[in-house]
Amino acid sequence: MSGFHGVFPYLVSPIAPDGAVLEGELRRLVEHLIAAGVHGLTPLGSTGEFAYLDAAQRRRIVEIVVDQARGRVPVVAGVAATTTADAVRQARDYAAIGADGILAILEAYFPVSDAGIVAYFTAVADATDLPTVLYTNPNFQRSDLSLPAIEQLSHHPRIGLIKDASTNTGRLLSIINRCAGRMEVFAASAHIPAAVMLIGGKGWMAGPACAIPRESVRLFELCRAGRWDAAMALQKALWRVNELFAAHSLAACIKGALQIQGFAVGDPIPPQAPLSAEGRAAVERALGLAAQALAEAPAA
Amino acid sequence: MSGFHGVFPYLVSPIAPDGAVLEGELRRLVEHLIAAGVHGLTPLGSTGEFAYLDAAQRRRIVEIVVDQARGRVPVVAGVAATTTADAVRQARDYAAIGADGILAILEAYFPVSDAGIVAYFTAVADATDLPTVLYTNPNFQRSDLSLPAIEQLSHHPRIGLIKDASTNTGRLLSIINRCAGRMEVFAASAHIPAAVMLIGGKGWMAGPACAIPRESVRLFELCRAGRWDAAMALQKALWRVNELFAAHSLAACIKGALQIQGFAVGDPIPPQAPLSAEGRAAVERALGLAAQALAEAPAA
Amino acid sequence: MSGFHGVFPYLVSPIAPDGAVLEGELRRLVEHLIAAGVHGLTPLGSTGEFAYLDAAQRRRIVEIVVDQARGRVPVVAGVAATTTADAVRQARDYAAIGADGILAILEAYFPVSDAGIVAYFTAVADATDLPTVLYTNPNFQRSDLSLPAIEQLSHHPRIGLIKDASTNTGRLLSIINRCAGRMEVFAASAHIPAAVMLIGGKGWMAGPACAIPRESVRLFELCRAGRWDAAMALQKALWRVNELFAAHSLAACIKGALQIQGFAVGDPIPPQAPLSAEGRAAVERALGLAAQALAEAPAA
Amino acid sequence: MSGFHGVFPYLVSPIAPDGAVLEGELRRLVEHLIAAGVHGLTPLGSTGEFAYLDAAQRRRIVEIVVDQARGRVPVVAGVAATTTADAVRQARDYAAIGADGILAILEAYFPVSDAGIVAYFTAVADATDLPTVLYTNPNFQRSDLSLPAIEQLSHHPRIGLIKDASTNTGRLLSIINRCAGRMEVFAASAHIPAAVMLIGGKGWMAGPACAIPRESVRLFELCRAGRWDAAMALQKALWRVNELFAAHSLAACIKGALQIQGFAVGDPIPPQAPLSAEGRAAVERALGLAAQALAEAPAA
Repeated sequence: MSGFHGVFPYLVSPIAPDGAVLEGELRRLVEHLIAAGVHGLTPLGSTGEFAYLDAAQRRRIVEIVVDQARGRVPVVAGVAATTTADAVRQARDYAAIGADGILAILEAYFPVSDAGIVAYFTAVADATDLPTVLYTNPNFQRSDLSLPAIEQLSHHPRIGLIKDASTNTGRLLSIINRCAGRMEVFAASAHIPAAVMLIGGKGWMAGPACAIPRESVRLFELCRAGRWDAAMALQKALWRVNELFAAHSLAACIKGALQIQGFAVGDPIPPQAPLSAEGRAAVERALGLAAQALAEAPAA
Repeated sequence: MSGFHGVFPYLVSPIAPDGAVLEGELRRLVEHLIAAGVHGLTPLGSTGEFAYLDAAQRRRIVEIVVDQARGRVPVVAGVAATTTADAVRQARDYAAIGADGILAILEAYFPVSDAGIVAYFTAVADATDLPTVLYTNPNFQRSDLSLPAIEQLSHHPRIGLIKDASTNTGRLLSIINRCAGRMEVFAASAHIPAAVMLIGGKGWMAGPACAIPRESVRLFELCRAGRWDAAMALQKALWRVNELFAAHSLAACIKGALQIQGFAVGDPIPPQAPLSAEGRAAVERALGLAAQALAEAPAA
Repeated sequence: MSGFHGVFPYLVSPIAPDGAVLEGELRRLVEHLIAAGVHGLTPLGSTGEFAYLDAAQRRRIVEIVVDQARGRVPVVAGVAATTTADAVRQARDYAAIGADGILAILEAYFPVSDAGIVAYFTAVADATDLPTVLYTNPNFQRSDLSLPAIEQLSHHPRIGLIKDASTNTGRLLSIINRCAGRMEVFAASAHIPAAVMLIGGKGWMAGPACAIPRESVRLFELCRAGRWDAAMALQKALWRVNELFAAHSLAACIKGALQIQGFAVGDPIPPQAPLSAEGRAAVERALGLAAQALAEAPAA
Repeated sequence: MSGFHGVFPYLVSPIAPDGAVLEGELRRLVEHLIAAGVHGLTPLGSTGEFAYLDAAQRRRIVEIVVDQARGRVPVVAGVAATTTADAVRQARDYAAIGADGILAILEAYFPVSDAGIVAYFTAVADATDLPTVLYTNPNFQRSDLSLPAIEQLSHHPRIGLIKDASTNTGRLLSIINRCAGRMEVFAASAHIPAAVMLIGGKGWMAGPACAIPRESVRLFELCRAGRWDAAMALQKALWRVNELFAAHSLAACIKGALQIQGFAVGDPIPPQAPLSAEGRAAVERALGLAAQALAEAPAA
């Protein structure tokens, strides 16, 4: 087991119109999140717009995040590819840069059989010595991980964590039941984090934590302390942020929320649209409610 | 608010090959469930195969259940129709028989607009003086209730409860947030009951509770007492029952589970298939694990 | 083989607000369609709102249509049920009334296996001596007929026709190839009738033919005569009617189109909405284009 | 209008296990197809596994195909990207290499609005002086082109062709009707080519044509000559090839079919699976039936 637990924000990828990575803003964001108490950092998740970045941009982002984190919290870098060869190459590259873990994503155009899926994730886990987190997001990716495939992968010595971004929370308990002791689960923004903590989750990897890191950390601490009433009071307020991020485009919402907070992280990469004025107003309200709920929440 | 809370098993509909309602078995089942401590009874839910019964069979089932329950627990009868006129007729009929609440279901062939959906449920709630529970099951029904439609309906004085049978647990919290104080939620078999209780649910209406009523009642009591660790230990075992019922056909599973327990409730109505031998063996194992977990669970 | 071919309009079901069948209008409609040259009549298809009618209403509609047709064209009556027993009862009933064929529809709530599907349609075909047409509509029904199931059913002596209402025209050619000589295909409103005629179809069963019967008959005749250029010129205009009927609700469109033509067939049964004013204007335009294209089309 | 018409095979991308493009085999394939009479060549379509190739591999494939074709038939190169910037770069690159047209594909991770979709395709068409073919494949791509978006794009001076790979043939006639005179349609392997020719299509761009080029060309000629009976006799046999390619993985099928014909084009790129032994036997049978049907078909 990796020991990974707690709140791992999905970092946005600040990109200039000419395609350059906005290094300064990314470093500021890393500092801000660590100062807020997050337990790890996840560049190149869905929120990080990995699907819109080329190999050089992705590599540069991992370099900056690892360099800036300086080992204070673990960095779990997203590896996403349609081919096994490309995924292995990315994983080795990010390990060489100094990442502490790999978040493994299978992109697909044609359907892939369970055997192909297992072979892909096994190859990624074999490629480095790092803990490898499975990531499945049936809403946006063209493949999904079946329970038998997850169980099979859970026997790999470096695969002990999964982040499931379906909206089906019951599936997480099925994974916990089926791979007892071999697979831990992280929530995604489509699950209620407190509910996932109740059923045995280890934390969450999600975009919203990038916008409300202190609130997220407090929620995690209250859950871990078994203070469920206080946790749920905070959770109810924070859920409005997740709802918003599901209604509007994820990357647009988180980038917009960070802009509101003074981070010049830019807009989503075209043809994705930036956050609308209406969306921005809604994000501002949700951030306000989250801050207020944090102020009213007890220390854990 | 209705005050409905706790465990409301969805009753199977025991039907002879010639279509007759097996009155004796249905009465025995009602007695068995009340003796197990359930908080209410729900005939004519999905598990009750309402979609496979004609008007006379449905009516007879409500009569028997109401008569046998003798007011010891509330009976919430399922009303399901494609037309407003048919639904209103059913609701009035079941109210006259003595049902304590209506579980309202909209069946559809062609898509229905939100306005049509709101009009339908409003007409059902207007038809009687009984509390009316909204029921939406996007997996099997050809319509779904949007959040705006639910919010609009929550202002009706007799609509204060919803049973959502999607697998999306986060949606329940969105309903609670959005209709605060006006709409309570019940879990369905596709949600983890303990997780729904954590976020503020009032109980669950579900087929599995018909097969494991004592286990379900204990789980509810542990949740209500805030004994979450003990609740989750029991929940993990019970979830295997729900998983099974999702893998095999719902009605076949619950009827099979009751046959194993000595209730001659018959098979699902053809062309639905009865539980396979393999399915029966799996159900037996799951029932055994549930009973064992109950034996190990503390009193609440 | 049944010999059924050509244009079989799906009749609307004219129902008064109190649920009575509007016998006079239905008889007028039957006369109108026969006068327009249609090759058969199909009461209780999707357009006929079978899913919104009770057993007595359905039976009455078949009686009226059979009585009014007086054997001038074959009447193929829709049988639709979730249970085998109900379907068999309907089929025998309609045969006793004098229907010339059965259009068999499986409704479902829970998923049905291929074996269950084959058993259902076989039971319907066994129930009478009438030719039985398979009908599958994956957009609105909760079950679909797989190619292996269709092939298996094609060996039944009374099953030799299928109406497929998917939008996948290639599937029709796959059926023709796979069941060569044993299964003929009818188009539905989601297919281009001329294209289905080209690949070997025998005609079409569809709601739009109820609104534009003369145009539909001419199109059929041009196709059968191999006058494809003239057929396509007419087809292009008629397709606008089908597009409209896909955009708006099917039953609302056809009932609206008939009202425009002077038939007091009423509105769709609530909670379905009547045709909007905008929809009515669009239908009027499409009917005008269809009439003009007919005027410009050569005789076959 | 581009004047593009007829049979444009989607070329497979022959790739060695180490990722090198197998230049010799690709050149042989180009010669073979031109000798068979095809009207154009389309590298980097779905069948060409564009989603599994990096920028260098894609570029090299276009270079080889353009160089080998030597202007004898037009080369329409596939441009596929998630970002506008990447797509524009590819289009300019392929134009500089000498491609005769662009097949424009939008890949997506997050949903894109119609406005974003129109902006993307407009930018690609603006990037070069070449005719730009829209390509939409709702089965495999994460976005689709709505009819209003297609109509809007049809007003661009360089966008006058669309290849729609849905299975919905009626949609093609809706496009033809709606964009009359401004947008021509090409069929894909999911449509019956003869049916698309009947309704006004200009030809087809599809993977199967890479495996049965002579048969495809004859079918096109028979359709264009209006010899529909002969066309359909051939079409029925060829459709078995398309059915097979839908049942098995597309790239695996076409690469397998070419291997059977002596082209060492290799296997699909892992984790995609190569064609199974059973699949290979089925492909051999289908090729045999196609060849036999060609032998029996008249000259056009």
